[in-house]
Amino acid sequence: MAKQLMDLVENEDFEMFVMLKKAEKRVAKNGKQFLAMTFQDKSGEINGMYWDASDEDVAKFTAGTIVHLTGKRESYLNSPQIKIVSMNLPNNDQHLVREDFVQAAPMKEDDMKAEIDKIVFSITNATYSRIVRFLLQKHGEAFFEFPAAKSNHHDFEGGLAFHTISIVRLAEHIVDQYSGIDAPLLYAGAVLHDLGKTIELSGPIGTTYTLAGNLLGHLSIIDAEIVEAADSLGIAQDSEDLLLLRHMVLSHHGLKEYGSPERPQLLEAEILHDLDELDASIMMMKRAIGQTKPGEFSDKIFGLDNRRFTAQQKRNNLDI
Amino acid sequence: MAKQLMDLVENEDFEMFVMLKKAEKRVAKNGKQFLAMTFQDKSGEINGMYWDASDEDVAKFTAGTIVHLTGKRESYLNSPQIKIVSMNLPNNDQHLVREDFVQAAPMKEDDMKAEIDKIVFSITNATYSRIVRFLLQKHGEAFFEFPAAKSNHHDFEGGLAFHTISIVRLAEHIVDQYSGIDAPLLYAGAVLHDLGKTIELSGPIGTTYTLAGNLLGHLSIIDAEIVEAADSLGIAQDSEDLLLLRHMVLSHHGLKEYGSPERPQLLEAEILHDLDELDASIMMMKRAIGQTKPGEFSDKIFGLDNRRFTAQQKRNNLDI
Amino acid sequence: MAKQLMDLVENEDFEMFVMLKKAEKRVAKNGKQFLAMTFQDKSGEINGMYWDASDEDVAKFTAGTIVHLTGKRESYLNSPQIKIVSMNLPNNDQHLVREDFVQAAPMKEDDMKAEIDKIVFSITNATYSRIVRFLLQKHGEAFFEFPAAKSNHHDFEGGLAFHTISIVRLAEHIVDQYSGIDAPLLYAGAVLHDLGKTIELSGPIGTTYTLAGNLLGHLSIIDAEIVEAADSLGIAQDSEDLLLLRHMVLSHHGLKEYGSPERPQLLEAEILHDLDELDASIMMMKRAIGQTKPGEFSDKIFGLDNRRFTAQQKRNNLDI
Amino acid sequence: MAKQLMDLVENEDFEMFVMLKKAEKRVAKNGKQFLAMTFQDKSGEINGMYWDASDEDVAKFTAGTIVHLTGKRESYLNSPQIKIVSMNLPNNDQHLVREDFVQAAPMKEDDMKAEIDKIVFSITNATYSRIVRFLLQKHGEAFFEFPAAKSNHHDFEGGLAFHTISIVRLAEHIVDQYSGIDAPLLYAGAVLHDLGKTIELSGPIGTTYTLAGNLLGHLSIIDAEIVEAADSLGIAQDSEDLLLLRHMVLSHHGLKEYGSPERPQLLEAEILHDLDELDASIMMMKRAIGQTKPGEFSDKIFGLDNRRFTAQQKRNNLDI
Amino acid sequence: MAKQLMDLVENEDFEMFVMLKKAEKRVAKNGKQFLAMTFQDKSGEINGMYWDASDEDVAKFTAGTIVHLTGKRESYLNSPQIKIVSMNLPNNDQHLVREDFVQAAPMKEDDMKAEIDKIVFSITNATYSRIVRFLLQKHGEAFFEFPAAKSNHHDFEGGLAFHTISIVRLAEHIVDQYSGIDAPLLYAGAVLHDLGKTIELSGPIGTTYTLAGNLLGHLSIIDAEIVEAADSLGIAQDSEDLLLLRHMVLSHHGLKEYGSPERPQLLEAEILHDLDELDASIMMMKRAIGQTKPGEFSDKIFGLDNRRFTAQQKRNNLDI
Amino acid sequence: MAKQLMDLVENEDFEMFVMLKKAEKRVAKNGKQFLAMTFQDKSGEINGMYWDASDEDVAKFTAGTIVHLTGKRESYLNSPQIKIVSMNLPNNDQHLVREDFVQAAPMKEDDMKAEIDKIVFSITNATYSRIVRFLLQKHGEAFFEFPAAKSNHHDFEGGLAFHTISIVRLAEHIVDQYSGIDAPLLYAGAVLHDLGKTIELSGPIGTTYTLAGNLLGHLSIIDAEIVEAADSLGIAQDSEDLLLLRHMVLSHHGLKEYGSPERPQLLEAEILHDLDELDASIMMMKRAIGQTKPGEFSDKIFGLDNRRFTAQQKRNNLDI
Repeated sequence: MAKQLMDLVENEDFEMFVMLKKAEKRVAKNGKQFLAMTFQDKSGEINGMYWDASDEDVAKFTAGTIVHLTGKRESYLNSPQIKIVSMNLPNNDQHLVREDFVQAAPMKEDDMKAEIDKIVFSITNATYSRIVRFLLQKHGEAFFEFPAAKSNHHDFEGGLAFHTISIVRLAEHIVDQYSGIDAPLLYAGAVLHDLGKTIELSGPIGTTYTLAGNLLGHLSIIDAEIVEAADSLGIAQDSEDLLLLRHMVLSHHGLKEYGSPERPQLLEAEILHDLDELDASIMMMKRAIGQTKPGEFSDKIFGLDNRRFTAQQKRNNLDI
Repeated sequence: MAKQLMDLVENEDFEMFVMLKKAEKRVAKNGKQFLAMTFQDKSGEINGMYWDASDEDVAKFTAGTIVHLTGKRESYLNSPQIKIVSMNLPNNDQHLVREDFVQAAPMKEDDMKAEIDKIVFSITNATYSRIVRFLLQKHGEAFFEFPAAKSNHHDFEGGLAFHTISIVRLAEHIVDQYSGIDAPLLYAGAVLHDLGKTIELSGPIGTTYTLAGNLLGHLSIIDAEIVEAADSLGIAQDSEDLLLLRHMVLSHHGLKEYGSPERPQLLEAEILHDLDELDASIMMMKRAIGQTKPGEFSDKIFGLDNRRFTAQQKRNNLDI
Repeated sequence: MAKQLMDLVENEDFEMFVMLKKAEKRVAKNGKQFLAMTFQDKSGEINGMYWDASDEDVAKFTAGTIVHLTGKRESYLNSPQIKIVSMNLPNNDQHLVREDFVQAAPMKEDDMKAEIDKIVFSITNATYSRIVRFLLQKHGEAFFEFPAAKSNHHDFEGGLAFHTISIVRLAEHIVDQYSGIDAPLLYAGAVLHDLGKTIELSGPIGTTYTLAGNLLGHLSIIDAEIVEAADSLGIAQDSEDLLLLRHMVLSHHGLKEYGSPERPQLLEAEILHDLDELDASIMMMKRAIGQTKPGEFSDKIFGLDNRRFTAQQKRNNLDI
Repeated sequence: MAKQLMDLVENEDFEMFVMLKKAEKRVAKNGKQFLAMTFQDKSGEINGMYWDASDEDVAKFTAGTIVHLTGKRESYLNSPQIKIVSMNLPNNDQHLVREDFVQAAPMKEDDMKAEIDKIVFSITNATYSRIVRFLLQKHGEAFFEFPAAKSNHHDFEGGLAFHTISIVRLAEHIVDQYSGIDAPLLYAGAVLHDLGKTIELSGPIGTTYTLAGNLLGHLSIIDAEIVEAADSLGIAQDSEDLLLLRHMVLSHHGLKEYGSPERPQLLEAEILHDLDELDASIMMMKRAIGQTKPGEFSDKIFGLDNRRFTAQQKRNNLDI
Repeated sequence: MAKQLMDLVENEDFEMFVMLKKAEKRVAKNGKQFLAMTFQDKSGEINGMYWDASDEDVAKFTAGTIVHLTGKRESYLNSPQIKIVSMNLPNNDQHLVREDFVQAAPMKEDDMKAEIDKIVFSITNATYSRIVRFLLQKHGEAFFEFPAAKSNHHDFEGGLAFHTISIVRLAEHIVDQYSGIDAPLLYAGAVLHDLGKTIELSGPIGTTYTLAGNLLGHLSIIDAEIVEAADSLGIAQDSEDLLLLRHMVLSHHGLKEYGSPERPQLLEAEILHDLDELDASIMMMKRAIGQTKPGEFSDKIFGLDNRRFTAQQKRNNLDI
Repeated sequence: MAKQLMDLVENEDFEMFVMLKKAEKRVAKNGKQFLAMTFQDKSGEINGMYWDASDEDVAKFTAGTIVHLTGKRESYLNSPQIKIVSMNLPNNDQHLVREDFVQAAPMKEDDMKAEIDKIVFSITNATYSRIVRFLLQKHGEAFFEFPAAKSNHHDFEGGLAFHTISIVRLAEHIVDQYSGIDAPLLYAGAVLHDLGKTIELSGPIGTTYTLAGNLLGHLSIIDAEIVEAADSLGIAQDSEDLLLLRHMVLSHHGLKEYGSPERPQLLEAEILHDLDELDASIMMMKRAIGQTKPGEFSDKIFGLDNRRFTAQQKRNNLDI
């Protein structure tokens, strides 16, 4: 397999195909324009500056473009950086496809669909089951494509479904280990809890917040979707089942400060919140440690209170 | 007019008709049962203990009953208290009606309805106007009967509508004084902001939280009501007008800590929040000062960070 | 099986044997002495007042005594309470043993020992394994008898080992589900994390904090134990393994505010903290819901930020 | 009317007269000196860099200078920026006056004086009235010239008086809408509440904090002024009126964290605080939205907890 | 010397003369009135209940009265309590004086005056010196009689001066140990910092907050006193010396949350704040430990974040 | 004595020998490499940029090198900065030694050792005395060389011992002024409290945190050292003396948020914490004021909640 961005070591000269994740025109202190770029392939991403960019360059090198890059892997303020030697569009006969350069969930979409199907099958309560099926039907396409976040964790194609599956697996173990948990409610809440992100976020590429995302947040978005689904399915708005399911999604951020209008008041709601945090934390820590040299400390992780993490010196690199 | 509860001075002997707001059976340290009571008339309420209550007494003296009370107005831990001399049910020929003993908003229901009608008329945006009319139609009866809260402020019959009207009046002044405010949005938000309380609370008497109130809160409740109303009226869920209106009600508690899933991000949403707090504060302070002797400090007000308030010594008593 | 305390319904008359968990002499407002008691059997505990206690009664009815109790199960301020009709010491020919009245972990001690042995066996790192074995050898007896806390959660005989086993089970699942976790470090940390409680607390009965517990806390206590163990075993104090293991136990409260001198900086340390909280939360919620009538809200749970919890109306009672 | 700074659209070439609000000498990464400038006219202000500034340029282009500017309106990090083509001092025969380039309150000074006179006239309590008149007499000139702040809100000439008038208008409406408010106390507090800023701040141009401002703050400054005024006017220091008025100004920041040594304990003090915040919030939001393209979100507003604000897409630009 | 209250051991029968510090009429659950009392002598104070008090008793046993008390020293909820056997007024021929029963500073007033004189003498800056002398002249009598607080620490006769002297002694040591400190400023600030308490509090007996105390606080009170003193002495209000001295007293609570409108911005102001806290902490801890049995933990100390303190088992009792 | 860095005034041309404290290679916006440098001598330190550095320069000018510097003292963003004219290595015949360029404690090491000896001599409790002597023996060399911190305060050679001595001096005064303090415990805690920094930090030059420092913190480090010392000395781990001494060091950060696993619960522990903060504050303030022009405000001090400090205009510069 060809060498990729994350394989480069400090001061290594290279040439390879990469995709431009970001290409922002800026003006240098000396008045000349340049492009602040992020290069990306499946292995990860690195920044670089394209100095003295002509207007033609600016038009040619936009986000999403695949380029042939010759350069050197250096460091700037302790972060890796590419010093660009030359950068060109590929020839027409070089058949390069976006899918080869984009980071994605470590499961195939079909496998994710199968696993979600399996868990839905185990939701034995009719109200929960019908609403979950209705909403997966309605938003299913986006559900398997979207990231789980704009950044921080699971911010890659399919990340939303992959994060959901991770939580479901944890939930299944909890149901096995502890008695007295309402499994259908927990599974239904787990599947739906972040589904509002398909409306909150713009999509898998160049992810931004939509107006609805900014003004309502994905908790109120999915809550309203559940309410509408119930109307469509003829489920009474004051049925206890419906109130409990709405509470599951509204409370899953755990704290009001984090945007939940009510804190968890059900055993299953508290567990859903805890598992959501646990999976997100593990993903953030694994990524941070994976990008850190053995024996050193990672950058500060915003989503974990700006802590730095380390690992044993003899540890191998981590997969996602 | 006959003497009322709030007219009594310390150590005054009296007899009068009052309503029992609360009558809880408890067991004294000596093992005998007694009734912890709250007596109520239009002027306010005072607690008292009915010692050595027989089972018959417990059955007879329940919340909502009107009684003839003979007693003395004393103090216990700096709070007024009634020492009960005797307490009897009224004779059959004494025609006493509940309405004469219950605290209510200082406006007649018809006047409140007229003022709400007037403000709805001035909501010139079609989306806002149709949704407001739809929801007032659906919940109008409760809207004019319910209190605005279980306790703290506007916790009396009609308090919800009266509080809404106070905010609307403030909003009208703000629209007059400052340019550039979207008046229809502000008015629509003001009318709807607390309407979810008709589902969150159980009703005007012996007010408690419903299951929906506990698990969802009145912000998510009214948000869902708006979403359903839009469906009924054929208004698209992704129309900008609808998103803004939903944001108005969801954000009106101002802080996430207070249950708003998003903080205000519209000029009108911030103003609505500010006016909501202003009106509630004024009501709480006026009540506290009204129950305090000139020159002294009130009890701690829970809803105002446990502050005590005072007033000039020469100040007259305050109306609601 | 004979009826137990938790089987009684409101206003039910009963007679049964119970153990006195607490028996405090107090003076009533009328100047007479009484005993504030907590009755206990394996099903749970209920309070009651023994009025007009003679000096002889005070001497006779002390904590730990088993009594024959005749009474009625009533309520006081929404909590169950026993109205005592009569209370006597058992006859000499009634062979009642403490073990039949004391709440304990829902696993037999031998089963817990076997499960701990199994996990220790899977700690393949020599440093961790030797230290864990050394300290289990040193504190093993207390480890399987002590509660995990003075109150709140796992506050019963064997609770410390049972809580530890629950966390280990969760940890094993996490190691299965996610790649890149240092399993021996996580398991060693899980087994040792609360072992300092055998020095922090006085024992399984009438549990209080020792002077060492008050002045040092169980985190610094177990940290020092690890340091001493390493000295005994000839493990260098500056070995990376030792530093990581000490960090696991010192950081497991997650936040400095909760007594960890350092926050978790290892993937495994953060996971240990999260699983510790998850297991404790589930235990507290299950207990609270188990003591609550279907459809109602539990008392406020101190260890969960004073939240109240509820469950579906149709839910069955929960086991521990 | 000639085109002004805020009329320029992105990439528009222009020439116009502007005033230099700021002109700071700095050294570029390449070692050459440049001037970091803020250009200003009545419409607003934009930054720009004057590269390779000679010592002569540095001496010539100082804050307060009016210049003839040729340039292009560009963007830098999402903020508007001027690319300077040339910059010259005006000819001697071009009669340009400072007043034409400086942002000021949207009321004429005479109108503001008349409105303040009117409200002072309505302060019917002799103590309040005499102190207010005394202090307006003493600090009146600065009161009508100073800004209300160094930045954030009302940070323009006459802003202090204009902000005061806005609060007085709100206060008058509150007195109309609610019974039981001590209007003279509220009005006197409103007029005086920020008058200490005439000593806390250096003046309307290049506003900085004075030593008294830094060490005492404007609350203690105006408090001391009131105390001295009372001495001059023969008002007893322990008169209730005086204590209440001092409390009004000392408590008007509402929270101790915001510098009020005591929180509001009078109905009127709490209202003054609320209206002060309301007017400042509205001003900050209107400015932020006015500088934001329809449909986008503003920069973070420091004075509003770093929130971003937006407005309806169809909204017109807002005046101050 | 006769036995005093603090000499009594649990269950000891006694008779002695004590003073009533508090005697509050209350009504028991059985409807009878009783007196909640606090007995006091120089050694300390203990509570007790006087049951079934007649109206005559209520009139006779008021705060400040000296009585002959026969009783038993018991415990209630872990606090010492007196069970009253009999209580009578002393005979006319028993010459008992208030001074023998009241706790006071452990220095004679004359000695405190001499020590304050000495420190004032060492304030070599004319501005500071003149203001300090002026204000000690004006408030000197109260300064040497008042407590330093209503409760918590130095809440005894002469406590204000004694606390001031303690801080001055610490300050002198700091000036000796560290170079570069403006000693006259530090000493002047130390002497004046709490002098406003002579206006904030009502006096040495039955200490309450005055209206000025509640509405202004002692920081703004002494600040205004300094301003008036400067006027009387012809010192310019904008002199740097005066601003620094005002800053010393205004900032001495250290944090805005604790009522300082500005935080310390002078070396001397920060030191004054630190020494003030240090002396108060030591006094609170010494009192708490002095009232605790060796080897046990004290009650929670409100002024020290509700911490409990302990001491070595072999420690002797502590003097003030 | 030759002119030093801190003697230079703005725009002064100079040549002198200095040491390079920092020399970091960076890349300028124009793509050329430069060295970001900090120059140091005994008087203090100033930054400067060495533009267009060749690879040879980068190799030659590393941290710790002494150079002959010709330049001009300028300002950049209100901070002093050196404009470099030329920079060369000294000739071989110029005998320059590191000690002449490094900031160190203002006491000679021998004097510090003598003063520590004296205080150890006064620790009359055998347990404390033996442990203190044992640990000073073990870590004494580092104790007298290390700084007390990586930055903030006492961050110079010998700073750890000097800071310890300052606290001991304060403690001695406290013992003199207040009765009832366990002096040996306080002195032992004072000597040991920061000794763990000899393991937490890497050393006096280019100080960084060690792995043990990051993962354990110096509180747990010294706690473990005490435990091991007790083992070596045959002192029982459960002796009260040992628990108290461990509590002294573990609690000396005062708040859990600052890394103390337990807050102070002994009079002596609280005093130690207070004196530690007091000495650190004074050092930080003196340094900040010493680097600030009379009449101006210092930079924000991180360790003092980002406050700025000022001093009287007529104040002289401060020594350390």
